[in-house]
Amino acid sequence: MDKPIVSIIMGSDSDLEIMSEAAKQLTDFGISHEIKVLSAHRSPQLVTQFCGEINQRGIKVIIAGAGGAAHLAGAVAAHTTVPVIGVPIDSSSLKGLDSLLATVQMPSGIPVATVAIGKAGAANAGILAAQILAVSSKELQLKLQKHKEKLVNSVVEKNIRLEKNRSS
Amino acid sequence: MDKPIVSIIMGSDSDLEIMSEAAKQLTDFGISHEIKVLSAHRSPQLVTQFCGEINQRGIKVIIAGAGGAAHLAGAVAAHTTVPVIGVPIDSSSLKGLDSLLATVQMPSGIPVATVAIGKAGAANAGILAAQILAVSSKELQLKLQKHKEKLVNSVVEKNIRLEKNRSS
Amino acid sequence: MDKPIVSIIMGSDSDLEIMSEAAKQLTDFGISHEIKVLSAHRSPQLVTQFCGEINQRGIKVIIAGAGGAAHLAGAVAAHTTVPVIGVPIDSSSLKGLDSLLATVQMPSGIPVATVAIGKAGAANAGILAAQILAVSSKELQLKLQKHKEKLVNSVVEKNIRLEKNRSS
Amino acid sequence: MDKPIVSIIMGSDSDLEIMSEAAKQLTDFGISHEIKVLSAHRSPQLVTQFCGEINQRGIKVIIAGAGGAAHLAGAVAAHTTVPVIGVPIDSSSLKGLDSLLATVQMPSGIPVATVAIGKAGAANAGILAAQILAVSSKELQLKLQKHKEKLVNSVVEKNIRLEKNRSS
Amino acid sequence: MDKPIVSIIMGSDSDLEIMSEAAKQLTDFGISHEIKVLSAHRSPQLVTQFCGEINQRGIKVIIAGAGGAAHLAGAVAAHTTVPVIGVPIDSSSLKGLDSLLATVQMPSGIPVATVAIGKAGAANAGILAAQILAVSSKELQLKLQKHKEKLVNSVVEKNIRLEKNRSS
Amino acid sequence: MDKPIVSIIMGSDSDLEIMSEAAKQLTDFGISHEIKVLSAHRSPQLVTQFCGEINQRGIKVIIAGAGGAAHLAGAVAAHTTVPVIGVPIDSSSLKGLDSLLATVQMPSGIPVATVAIGKAGAANAGILAAQILAVSSKELQLKLQKHKEKLVNSVVEKNIRLEKNRSS
Amino acid sequence: MDKPIVSIIMGSDSDLEIMSEAAKQLTDFGISHEIKVLSAHRSPQLVTQFCGEINQRGIKVIIAGAGGAAHLAGAVAAHTTVPVIGVPIDSSSLKGLDSLLATVQMPSGIPVATVAIGKAGAANAGILAAQILAVSSKELQLKLQKHKEKLVNSVVEKNIRLEKNRSS
Amino acid sequence: MDKPIVSIIMGSDSDLEIMSEAAKQLTDFGISHEIKVLSAHRSPQLVTQFCGEINQRGIKVIIAGAGGAAHLAGAVAAHTTVPVIGVPIDSSSLKGLDSLLATVQMPSGIPVATVAIGKAGAANAGILAAQILAVSSKELQLKLQKHKEKLVNSVVEKNIRLEKNRSS
Repeated sequence: MDKPIVSIIMGSDSDLEIMSEAAKQLTDFGISHEIKVLSAHRSPQLVTQFCGEINQRGIKVIIAGAGGAAHLAGAVAAHTTVPVIGVPIDSSSLKGLDSLLATVQMPSGIPVATVAIGKAGAANAGILAAQILAVSSKELQLKLQKHKEKLVNSVVEKNIRLEKNRSS
Repeated sequence: MDKPIVSIIMGSDSDLEIMSEAAKQLTDFGISHEIKVLSAHRSPQLVTQFCGEINQRGIKVIIAGAGGAAHLAGAVAAHTTVPVIGVPIDSSSLKGLDSLLATVQMPSGIPVATVAIGKAGAANAGILAAQILAVSSKELQLKLQKHKEKLVNSVVEKNIRLEKNRSS
Repeated sequence: MDKPIVSIIMGSDSDLEIMSEAAKQLTDFGISHEIKVLSAHRSPQLVTQFCGEINQRGIKVIIAGAGGAAHLAGAVAAHTTVPVIGVPIDSSSLKGLDSLLATVQMPSGIPVATVAIGKAGAANAGILAAQILAVSSKELQLKLQKHKEKLVNSVVEKNIRLEKNRSS
Repeated sequence: MDKPIVSIIMGSDSDLEIMSEAAKQLTDFGISHEIKVLSAHRSPQLVTQFCGEINQRGIKVIIAGAGGAAHLAGAVAAHTTVPVIGVPIDSSSLKGLDSLLATVQMPSGIPVATVAIGKAGAANAGILAAQILAVSSKELQLKLQKHKEKLVNSVVEKNIRLEKNRSS
Repeated sequence: MDKPIVSIIMGSDSDLEIMSEAAKQLTDFGISHEIKVLSAHRSPQLVTQFCGEINQRGIKVIIAGAGGAAHLAGAVAAHTTVPVIGVPIDSSSLKGLDSLLATVQMPSGIPVATVAIGKAGAANAGILAAQILAVSSKELQLKLQKHKEKLVNSVVEKNIRLEKNRSS
Repeated sequence: MDKPIVSIIMGSDSDLEIMSEAAKQLTDFGISHEIKVLSAHRSPQLVTQFCGEINQRGIKVIIAGAGGAAHLAGAVAAHTTVPVIGVPIDSSSLKGLDSLLATVQMPSGIPVATVAIGKAGAANAGILAAQILAVSSKELQLKLQKHKEKLVNSVVEKNIRLEKNRSS
Repeated sequence: MDKPIVSIIMGSDSDLEIMSEAAKQLTDFGISHEIKVLSAHRSPQLVTQFCGEINQRGIKVIIAGAGGAAHLAGAVAAHTTVPVIGVPIDSSSLKGLDSLLATVQMPSGIPVATVAIGKAGAANAGILAAQILAVSSKELQLKLQKHKEKLVNSVVEKNIRLEKNRSS
Repeated sequence: MDKPIVSIIMGSDSDLEIMSEAAKQLTDFGISHEIKVLSAHRSPQLVTQFCGEINQRGIKVIIAGAGGAAHLAGAVAAHTTVPVIGVPIDSSSLKGLDSLLATVQMPSGIPVATVAIGKAGAANAGILAAQILAVSSKELQLKLQKHKEKLVNSVVEKNIRLEKNRSS
């Protein structure tokens, strides 16, 4: 794969199944990316080191997934001016309400672009990264346009299948 | 002002005080923008019409604020592939928990980049828009870097003031 | 089946099991209806098109089920003056609290008649549609009266069975 | 006023300010209505008596507002087959979350058409009643159409005012 | 069994497994009781009829279990001055938060003695009924005293077992 | 006043305004009572001592109000077999949700009869105490019957006043 | 094992699996400890007795786990000045939200050092106890330093494994 | 003042009023301390620098207050093995529920000793710091003992005052 321009990081390797949804979307859009485990709490120095290399490595967007007191996205956003997308993971007994609030309720000055809890959110993080990169890429804009058409077509097809099943 | 590249829209003019925080940040970053009232519920045709003109008008990022069953950001995201930032407004008796969930819990396929509830979120929406535009703008990257330094300086100054007050 | 007068729409075909409860009730009351997949987020144009044909197609009541940032009912209510019944689906990790708030907390001017989360709500949506149509139909009023009597009888029978089981 | 066809009832006279929003809408639509205090808990017999007279009095739709363990709408829905609209009032320290859940989470068999918490919900209850009655009234359909146009116009006007204020 | 002095009622026979915990406790304390299905929503007349016979049938305490918009305890409390104990059942997708709030948040004038959600609550409802009856029964007071000693002993025994397991 | 048979205790004297509602009801029913400050956390020995004297002092029912991690009712219930009524106070920033859960979610074996959050709950605690004492007192039963009639009359009067205001 | 200096107590032996995580951490740090079942509600006298012996037995830190209306940590904190760590157990239908609030929302004067809900919290309670004891123990400080390094290493190793899996 | 052994840090100087409660308690116990503004998000390098100097500066306990996505306590706990006490501040529209969850729900390996939301929590943070330091200080143990006696006395005095007011 090419040098990554999107970096997907996650608090624990148990989040891999969920965060792979982001990677899948990026692969579909042909956007080079990497996946790493980076914990704001277990390895803060690695997070700082990672943030220090973002610009020189050419990373344009960061997608960070974490559960519970989910600080990873906010910790990275504190260190960089690159857009950070936060994915709340529903790994705790509170079903992601804690992860959502810990990710989204950032103080004035340091935004985290938060998406939905869990798999839908991870997939959308990949698409949002594509939308951000598309601001200066006609090619990506066209791909996103096609992706939107596919969404419409999938609804149309579901209706055809539904009607068939009900009339049969 | 120049032709806007960021569009700030809100469900009601009572949201203006909060959403002005986004405008302030964009002004500080020298990013041309507009503010409009557009209700997903009261004026759906205007929303569709607005979405149809996004590309030709050269809008690059949309910031949408709404309260309660806050659908505005999602409704726009459904129509466009431009990044949409959602600001949950705490105008209902549930203090923005409803607005937050209605904005952030989008289904797979249509991301909304959600920020914090209320004023802090609106200000961060402005900064996030700048970060997105900075992906392809060295100038904006430098401005964001300076903004980050100001945040650090404000903390340093607050400590000096705090120490003075306590020792006096 | 006759030309439908109630339209059941849902955000995804994974909601079919739940929304079929509404269809079952309508069938029991002899009310012609249709079921369609229509996503406010994946296929907004199809929703607008659907709404534009409501009146000429003779649709009198709409039942809309959706999960997460559940905008479908509100999106349809924005376009039509026909009564819209919203069914919150508990498909996300927040167990339908998000769907409920996104469906019910509509702003002044655009009501959505919201029912309970999940299957009980879907069944009640069917009954509520019957009640709305019964405002101008003696026949339906009688059927609803009989339905109410059945509910009482089922409680009486449950008590007889309970007593038998406990005394045996 | 003519014989009422919509009955607005509320658990306490302290709910009057909120529930008057429903009355205002009905007045605007020219729908005759009444307002009564009826508590499911303090005066259950009066509720039963009220329900027994609904049909003969020609009441077509009921709007019931209550706070806390808000049972009024459900209690009336248990007794009648007329559509019952529930308005959760935010009078308790939990800000209407209790009222909302106690109103909307009805068991299968007995729907309550629940609207938003507080004033917006009360206004929408009035409009929803008009929509229900409009199912068999061309005149009301036209009035609802005009009401929808007013909503759009109010958005257009707010934008004109907003632009003026910002350019001046 | 003797003429019942405690009546256990529940909104649905699916609540039987939980509400049996109340019956077990009453059996242990030698208190005669009955179990009935009575729905505030499906069979309001049966509830009213049941309430009208409470005094002449010699019922001294009522235990009412219900889920969702749990009105049963409140509906009975509205009709009688006998103490009513409410057991919130966690049968809905909101896990009993709705049942708890709909049971406990009663308006001034009509108390419902609410216990914990689910089985622990049902068992405690049985014990609370015994405590209420014990106010005028020395015999029951002694039994409750013994029950309390058993609770202490069970803790002591658990510690002995725990220590054995850990040292072995 | 006579020797108290109901004891009202509260975690802090700042709860006095709320807990006085319980005292008012008891005074109206002619039930002798006392009010004390007793903190499960600040003065556990006083709580234990208080509990040890309940029986010999002739206390029949206890009403305990507390906020936040509201343990007072549970702490007393742990020590005594007399019925304990818990009033959750909304003194913390979570508006009584914490107090409610800390009061009501008692484990199997030790019931607390929990009433609504705040003033309505405190008043109901007084009435519930009267209902418990009425199990063995014809006189109190009659008073409770009259109290119920007053509730009905207050609703009737409110309607008369409402109608007057609207027709004038 | 040596005389314990940390005491792990829990409301029920069903909490043992979770609370063992605390014991494991203490064992790893070489800190002598005990595990006991002690219910604030079922055996309040045993709790008081336990608290009275804390100092003479040389207990330096207490870890208390409980679910629902989780009073154990607060009850012990009321009796002792030794640091008390509270572990909310997610044993009720509210998934530990009740346990968390009942443990953490202590009134001014009596702190409980609350950790996360469930297993992660229990493990952290063990580590926090070690941190507290390390304030006056160089040896423990070194062990904690090594433990922190292990956390970093585990992240590094997870990344190596992740990269291997993805490149293979 | 002597070299501080407790460091009170807070995310913003608007938290000073609340966090001063911690300082007051430390002053009362004669424990030297400092107060600083340190934002995990606005000044992450200052936080890292602060953490690097904790040991050599002789800081024994850290008290960290923050609101919203409250990461400060966790960020410091990630860098140090000194006990970190977290105070959730109720500065956002969600009234501290977000701050509480973001502070307490830490992953296994990095504990934060969380106290109550707001002023009561801040005061308790000061007392908890004293309890931690008292593990190796007889003098502080005696002071804590006296503090506990004062709490009891304040309850006794409040009762005397209450009785006076009621009998007069």
